[in-house]
Amino acid sequence: MKKVDIVLVGFGNVGREFVRLVIEKQEVIRQRHGLDLRFRTIFRTTGSLMVKSQSPIEGILAGTIPPGREAALWNPAVRLPQVLAPGARGVLVECASSDIRTGEPGLEIIRTALSRGWHAVTADKGPLVAGLGELRKTAARKGLTLGSSGAAGAALPALDVGLRSLAGTEITAVEGILNGTTNYILTRMGQGASFDQALRAAQARGIAEPDPSYDVQGLDTAVKLLLLANAAMGLCLGLGDIDIEPVTRVSRRRIETARRRGQKIKLLGKIQRGPRGVRAEAKLRALGPSHPLFGVDGTDKGVTFTTDTMGAVTVTGGKSDPRGAAAALLKDIINIYVR
Amino acid sequence: MKKVDIVLVGFGNVGREFVRLVIEKQEVIRQRHGLDLRFRTIFRTTGSLMVKSQSPIEGILAGTIPPGREAALWNPAVRLPQVLAPGARGVLVECASSDIRTGEPGLEIIRTALSRGWHAVTADKGPLVAGLGELRKTAARKGLTLGSSGAAGAALPALDVGLRSLAGTEITAVEGILNGTTNYILTRMGQGASFDQALRAAQARGIAEPDPSYDVQGLDTAVKLLLLANAAMGLCLGLGDIDIEPVTRVSRRRIETARRRGQKIKLLGKIQRGPRGVRAEAKLRALGPSHPLFGVDGTDKGVTFTTDTMGAVTVTGGKSDPRGAAAALLKDIINIYVR
Repeated sequence: MKKVDIVLVGFGNVGREFVRLVIEKQEVIRQRHGLDLRFRTIFRTTGSLMVKSQSPIEGILAGTIPPGREAALWNPAVRLPQVLAPGARGVLVECASSDIRTGEPGLEIIRTALSRGWHAVTADKGPLVAGLGELRKTAARKGLTLGSSGAAGAALPALDVGLRSLAGTEITAVEGILNGTTNYILTRMGQGASFDQALRAAQARGIAEPDPSYDVQGLDTAVKLLLLANAAMGLCLGLGDIDIEPVTRVSRRRIETARRRGQKIKLLGKIQRGPRGVRAEAKLRALGPSHPLFGVDGTDKGVTFTTDTMGAVTVTGGKSDPRGAAAALLKDIINIYVR
Repeated sequence: MKKVDIVLVGFGNVGREFVRLVIEKQEVIRQRHGLDLRFRTIFRTTGSLMVKSQSPIEGILAGTIPPGREAALWNPAVRLPQVLAPGARGVLVECASSDIRTGEPGLEIIRTALSRGWHAVTADKGPLVAGLGELRKTAARKGLTLGSSGAAGAALPALDVGLRSLAGTEITAVEGILNGTTNYILTRMGQGASFDQALRAAQARGIAEPDPSYDVQGLDTAVKLLLLANAAMGLCLGLGDIDIEPVTRVSRRRIETARRRGQKIKLLGKIQRGPRGVRAEAKLRALGPSHPLFGVDGTDKGVTFTTDTMGAVTVTGGKSDPRGAAAALLKDIINIYVR
């Protein structure tokens, strides 16, 4: 049985779901993979929780501990570097919400972990957009793993396929329907709704944020496309290299014309290597039934990789809620230790 | 730079394509993955070729060496155990065509490799159907890898997803369109052809064998389903556990009825864990547009995994020719050495 210490940073929706999932799966993972996963410390903005076997972590998750008593469990004096003592190797799980341009605070958190010989897995896009190259180099130099499935597709195994399943191929293009919110809106519009009706329906179901601009402006699609393409195609693109068309620009007429032709309008992220260099965009495109992503409707997502020796390979589906992201973090951890 | 010795057994379509691919990709794999892939010996039924730097292997592949001179290059006296000397570690690539029931000769070949401390990758279904459990146990005990992507889906990364991308989940069902020949026939029938017309069209394009029974009787679908489910769901099913419906039984009327309802008839392999145990079948099913495999037409293949924590994840596509299988073997080799 291999003991794996986990330090978690970030105790929002995904962080909490991750703790819940590890507790739930602990016994199965012991039996099936020979890994004994144990939380060492959990950090949230208001302090750190030193997890001991008698810590009332289930009570915290369930919200059954009175707020006053709970606050006393979190110690604001403990800092990350103390916990990541060199030699006490394990995995740092990063679930902060970092700035997409500076990458902070996630970038510094992951840097600290790798520099102390800890593996890192993250569900946070910021540090990967801002510093993927640097972090991967550090990890490789130290023989450590940086797992980023949780940030790039979550339960949709886009990175696994791009990095491992297509190893040895030349990936000439990556195309994806990468944002569930806009895909839901476009699917509803294809069924006759206006943009405003579709957005309100998405908000009513908790699919769209009260301020939906990050999604509907196409930024989330561009960020995920960037993570995938930079990792799988070995590129170093920044957000400014992607030509972005907001979903707000789509007209009922364009949707209707596509429908009459048997097509669907999708927000398609696409990076393509061509004779005149790399072209990157996140734009509204009409897809016909022969396109491998044609059937990806509602909140579903999907990615198609075009390669030289394996043809086109597509992955679709995978839960896009906090539980799916938590499951992706757990998957990355298992794959660090088990071949 | 890590030197990786390769011993290849089987020099048919896939074996030859694999040699061609490795020669073509050698330099890129050196640069990108730090692996120096080198053939040590190639075995075919008529003898073994000891590969030295001056071996005219390109000439053999191109068929430009006179038959008499070529025959002299293959030495029938060299046996596999001699070449797989313990200590001279590397990868055995198994491309024989083994019997689906006994698993031989592939089973004994892979057993020999693992027992001598060599990793093994295979494009041969026989040894996996007959002896997956035994071979995986041996590999695990010795810290070796048994790569079987080439046999189960080839360029379609079904095993990678089932084993790695879904690690930590409970896979409750595996469904797949797993045979390109029958899917091509059913697609053509959906466009109005009769079974005989569709089969003849497939044979004319080299998609169906002159004797198509292994495909159209549903056996190939059942075998691939078995490999996937036994590996990813941890089952130990045999071919006799799968309820198989031959494609020859489909009527024009059934195809036509489905078409009028907006559905398609597909040969669907399915293994499902239910309250009353495991149900396994390879049967003709009508799929509607909301099914994730609905768009998998022609010679394409696809697999959907249903899980507890990640929802349903689908992979589709991937070349199903010898080049796709060769690329899958190469991918498995890279992933043995590179994380």
